[in-house]
Amino acid sequence: MTSSVPKLFSGFAVEKPEKWQEPKLVQYEPRELWPTDITIKVKACGVCGSDCHQVSGNWGPFNRENLIVGHEIVGEVVEVGSEVTKHKLGDIVAIGAQSDSCGECTRCKSNNEQYCKHGIVGTYNSIHPKANGYVTQGGYASHFRVNAHFAASVPKNLDIHSAAPLLCGGLTVYSPIVRHAGHDLTGKTIGIVGIGGLGAMALQISKALGAKDVYAFSRSSAKKEDALKLGANHFIATGEDKEWTKSHEDSFDLILYCANSGKGADFNPYLDVLKLTGSFVTVSAPPIGELVSFQPFSLLSNGANVAGSGIGSMKEADELLKLYADKGLNVWIEKVPISEEGVKEVLTRGSKSDVRYRFVLTDFDKAFKAN
Amino acid sequence: MTSSVPKLFSGFAVEKPEKWQEPKLVQYEPRELWPTDITIKVKACGVCGSDCHQVSGNWGPFNRENLIVGHEIVGEVVEVGSEVTKHKLGDIVAIGAQSDSCGECTRCKSNNEQYCKHGIVGTYNSIHPKANGYVTQGGYASHFRVNAHFAASVPKNLDIHSAAPLLCGGLTVYSPIVRHAGHDLTGKTIGIVGIGGLGAMALQISKALGAKDVYAFSRSSAKKEDALKLGANHFIATGEDKEWTKSHEDSFDLILYCANSGKGADFNPYLDVLKLTGSFVTVSAPPIGELVSFQPFSLLSNGANVAGSGIGSMKEADELLKLYADKGLNVWIEKVPISEEGVKEVLTRGSKSDVRYRFVLTDFDKAFKAN
Ligand SMILES: NC(=O)c1ccc[n+]([C@@H]2O[C@H](COP(=O)([O-])OP(=O)(O)OC[C@H]3O[C@@H](n4cnc5c(N)ncnc54)[C@H](OP(=O)(O)O)[C@@H]3O)[C@@H](O)[C@H]2O)c1
Ligand SMILES: NC(=O)c1ccc[n+]([C@@H]2O[C@H](COP(=O)([O-])OP(=O)(O)OC[C@H]3O[C@@H](n4cnc5c(N)ncnc54)[C@H](OP(=O)(O)O)[C@@H]3O)[C@@H](O)[C@H]2O)c1
Ligand SMILES: [Zn+2]
Ligand SMILES: [Zn+2]
Ligand SMILES: [Zn+2]
Ligand SMILES: [Zn+2]
Repeated sequence: MTSSVPKLFSGFAVEKPEKWQEPKLVQYEPRELWPTDITIKVKACGVCGSDCHQVSGNWGPFNRENLIVGHEIVGEVVEVGSEVTKHKLGDIVAIGAQSDSCGECTRCKSNNEQYCKHGIVGTYNSIHPKANGYVTQGGYASHFRVNAHFAASVPKNLDIHSAAPLLCGGLTVYSPIVRHAGHDLTGKTIGIVGIGGLGAMALQISKALGAKDVYAFSRSSAKKEDALKLGANHFIATGEDKEWTKSHEDSFDLILYCANSGKGADFNPYLDVLKLTGSFVTVSAPPIGELVSFQPFSLLSNGANVAGSGIGSMKEADELLKLYADKGLNVWIEKVPISEEGVKEVLTRGSKSDVRYRFVLTDFDKAFKAN
Repeated sequence: MTSSVPKLFSGFAVEKPEKWQEPKLVQYEPRELWPTDITIKVKACGVCGSDCHQVSGNWGPFNRENLIVGHEIVGEVVEVGSEVTKHKLGDIVAIGAQSDSCGECTRCKSNNEQYCKHGIVGTYNSIHPKANGYVTQGGYASHFRVNAHFAASVPKNLDIHSAAPLLCGGLTVYSPIVRHAGHDLTGKTIGIVGIGGLGAMALQISKALGAKDVYAFSRSSAKKEDALKLGANHFIATGEDKEWTKSHEDSFDLILYCANSGKGADFNPYLDVLKLTGSFVTVSAPPIGELVSFQPFSLLSNGANVAGSGIGSMKEADELLKLYADKGLNVWIEKVPISEEGVKEVLTRGSKSDVRYRFVLTDFDKAFKAN
């Protein structure tokens, strides 16, 4: 079934990393619609820290010219492949950083499709293995075409501007929280490091899941008041308080590292305050070449556990959208109408983490009148 | 109760790190006997890689002059404090790298005394918090005095020359194996990196616990034949085969890093071959300043888990001694009679990992005739 889907999609693209501050409106040819696909008309798109890393070349060169980023996408279904049962025309759905996977391997079949054995197809800048060299384009665009499995249904009572950032930023912190500390955080102590987009959502989620103590770790105390409103009941400015570990030994069930970079950061103090069965989990995806380093003795003296986590499963995305809807939560966002100017602003300010706490691009109808 | 215990103990000491290749026979005054203590007459002492790191200054300066190392100690009980019920005169017991802990904290009370919240008292070079600045002395000595809890009973059907290395080297690999992969390894795939003293015992233990596949990773293929005899059924020479990861994705439940150093080692391949719920655990305690480093993307793409582990609990020590006794296993050792020459040899060759696979010092009676 098809409604009005243009042959060419439109979007705000960056030609190449050197020109990341000059986004331009372009048209591009989407890959063909497969039976398992839907096409959506985009209504809102969050701006993930990853978008900024990607466009500015922190993760290396692009796989195509005129790359369109954006992987926190909400829109209305305007086209449905013949085998799709999950969504129908008119549904409001949300897509995150993953747009496809093999669907066949044990990981895909066990709600671990984000760790597909054959690699995941990213929402943008991924060479799609089934599409003959086609490089995926993201959600700063008029339309978006995707395997229906990777589109979550947005609950009616959830603002679409909250749903968008939940699909990448929110999911990326929700998954390690529930996998490493459980779905019920009663009695648990959780630490969130780096109060940016991901960190702010992690504070809300930790509180919503019932954590006893939620610590926000930030470089300065500038975000203290916000962090306490978001869900923290403790705040530590790591750049100002160098002695904080002393009173917190053997305290944390989970410390989630959500900062943009670990350069110059000292991870060892976080290991020193973990409970014996606790974990330090990093979701940070810093510029290529940056390493995560530990003194082995900090690992040994505590039996400390360090892990990484990439986005989350679609099952977890559903749980998370329901959690926000049920608790009446909203992501803290700054709305910016999409346009060349608007995209330039969110990328430039976003790359300095100058946002409280997530940009969401809006007004797609105005920008893409032609479609 | 007391048998014949001299006022001064004798041992082979290193004056300071600069003179680590000139061990000398010295006498020293032990700390007083507490009601919870036993004193043993030493019969055998293994030579741990840690002894070599310690004496040569890899871990910094000594806390005392004339440091006596050695923390794989077997001996006969010759003195028993008034409150001791665990051991009696004449018992054969074994002591590892830990000689005391607070005994009161939740970790001490839950068979996790090796992670005591108040820090552990090492068998040598530790300032004993209850003994007024006394710095502990190890087992290259005539006698050894220790909290009875930290002495394990050696099963009658186990050779004392196997019991000694099991108490540090063996325990250090046994604990992470059972904590991260379980006591029953049926169907599991275990990788052991670095086939030295620890690695050789880890191969035996993995096989004894029923692992389906045991991989030995070594820098060259020199130890292949031995590794297969020790318990491995696969061998990978990482310095020769650079492509090995390709055929092993999503394979390992546990990879245990037992090498002396991680300098120049690339840890990322090991993360790439872990199962989703698998762990990479390092027990390596390299020279101070060396860091363990990972590319965050290797951590994220697999949800990989990295952990450290320090020695083990006394409960685990008992299990391990019983395992070797029940299975009729012996640690692969080279015996060297203790003397200034002998200690020089084991430290010098040990610091080059030139041993198949553990030195055990013997003939204590001859060396300490005076006592
Ligand atoms: N694993 C995944 O699947 C996944 C998914 C999405 C995003 N990510 C990654 O997660 C990271 C955070 O994304 P985000 O959208 O939350 O970014 P963000 O909004 O820019 O927030 C990053 C936060 O990190 C801290 N920070 C910024 N620069 C820093 C530096 N140089 N050193 C240390 N800390 C710094 C700041 O917190 P304070 O001011 O409080 O210190 C900042 O608010 C990015 O690296 C992104 O690529 C990973
Ligand atoms: N966590 C703890 O509680 C604990 C307890 C005891 C010991 N340790 C530590 O565990 C480590 C191993 O002890 P060990 O007694 O088994 O030592 P070892 O007998 O000397 O064996 C170390 C093995 O590491 C490999 N190796 C040696 N030099 C290396 C280098 N420069 N780079 C990479 N690999 C190297 C070699 O294996 P291949 O030839 O097969 O490559 C060697 O046989 C030491 O660091 C020791 O301090 C820790
Ligand atoms: Zn993202
Ligand atoms: Zn798959
Ligand atoms: Zn040792
Ligand atoms: Zn304790």
